[in-house]
Amino acid sequence: MAATGPGVPPRGIIRQGTPSKIVAVGLNYRSHARELGMAVPREPILFLKPPSAVIGNGDAIELPAGVGRVDYEAELAVVIGKTARGVTVDEAHEYILGYICANDVTARDLQEEDGQWTRAKSFDTFCPLGPEPESAAPESDALVELVLNGEVRQSAPVSDMIFSPTELVAFISSVMTLERGDVIITGTPPGVGLLTAGDRVTVRIGGVGELSNFVSAAH
Amino acid sequence: MAATGPGVPPRGIIRQGTPSKIVAVGLNYRSHARELGMAVPREPILFLKPPSAVIGNGDAIELPAGVGRVDYEAELAVVIGKTARGVTVDEAHEYILGYICANDVTARDLQEEDGQWTRAKSFDTFCPLGPEPESAAPESDALVELVLNGEVRQSAPVSDMIFSPTELVAFISSVMTLERGDVIITGTPPGVGLLTAGDRVTVRIGGVGELSNFVSAAH
Repeated sequence: MAATGPGVPPRGIIRQGTPSKIVAVGLNYRSHARELGMAVPREPILFLKPPSAVIGNGDAIELPAGVGRVDYEAELAVVIGKTARGVTVDEAHEYILGYICANDVTARDLQEEDGQWTRAKSFDTFCPLGPEPESAAPESDALVELVLNGEVRQSAPVSDMIFSPTELVAFISSVMTLERGDVIITGTPPGVGLLTAGDRVTVRIGGVGELSNFVSAAH
Repeated sequence: MAATGPGVPPRGIIRQGTPSKIVAVGLNYRSHARELGMAVPREPILFLKPPSAVIGNGDAIELPAGVGRVDYEAELAVVIGKTARGVTVDEAHEYILGYICANDVTARDLQEEDGQWTRAKSFDTFCPLGPEPESAAPESDALVELVLNGEVRQSAPVSDMIFSPTELVAFISSVMTLERGDVIITGTPPGVGLLTAGDRVTVRIGGVGELSNFVSAAH
């Protein structure tokens, strides 16, 4: 549900091509690390998704021909409100404009083939973001959920994240200057799975909203 | 040397934050693959550098504190002239605005530590581009060179590239829509090496120009 009143983030700040960058974080849920039998990382593992991949709520995710398996990944995203460079964890909240739902759509076979994750995560339509930034941070027991054709497939509380949104803003801003409208997607809970043409896929986050997209074959 | 006359690319199209994306290619010189004892890749390996990393000719490359070894990588860069999606190799030249020198500055220790190359290549100032796009493609025997404090450290002809600029535009545009001003950096020849505060580092490409930067410790 959208917030009302003063301090509401401007609508439409996120659309295709507008963030100057989308910074993504690998393996950031304790339960997901356990599921994969991997150690909890000491520092966030970063990658980038291109602005050309962004679509909004209600837009179609297009499955490219010939790439094999394509997966959903429900994620909480942070939208940056003003230029951030070298900010501390304590002051990071001042640089956050709001929170929004993200789906880090991934061509899983290409991800394994390439080693580098970029190609697999950079196809047009592979970064649904929506519906609109919500200024209040989600509560620690808010669930990050993926609903596929009405069935819940991913569900974990924000408190299961290894690095919190403010820790991520601080860490990333120690590497690269973040600009207003930039987006950080904060990793996915356990339970990622396959998308098929005709699916309706929804990312639902308590206090943040719902992002729904249909899946189609590329035209 | 800058081109003159009709068809000259507009000056100043490339500056910090302006490309909507910078797409980079791993291991793209046969001689570099041999040097590393690696097979020639079947398809380009892609990664992204953020627009916040871009600096111009004469600007300072800043070495971040505590990241260990930082290397230069001389590269030929392609500047996109108009929106490109799913273009063929034969038509790719129509979408190229020009060619420019690039230095894919890399924190080598972090690259190995992370596995994903993004953090290592995304620090502010880690993407020098310049001097200005040159509309004519370099000849196949044009040399891509790195000169460190007056000594040539990298030197290989454009013909040693595994995937040509037009092949890269076609391949990348089959994944993601390229926009005017986007940049593709096309990989580095053998001989990458260490940067130290006080160095003067120059990327020199026959027919394209020279890009010079001083190296300083981060302030």
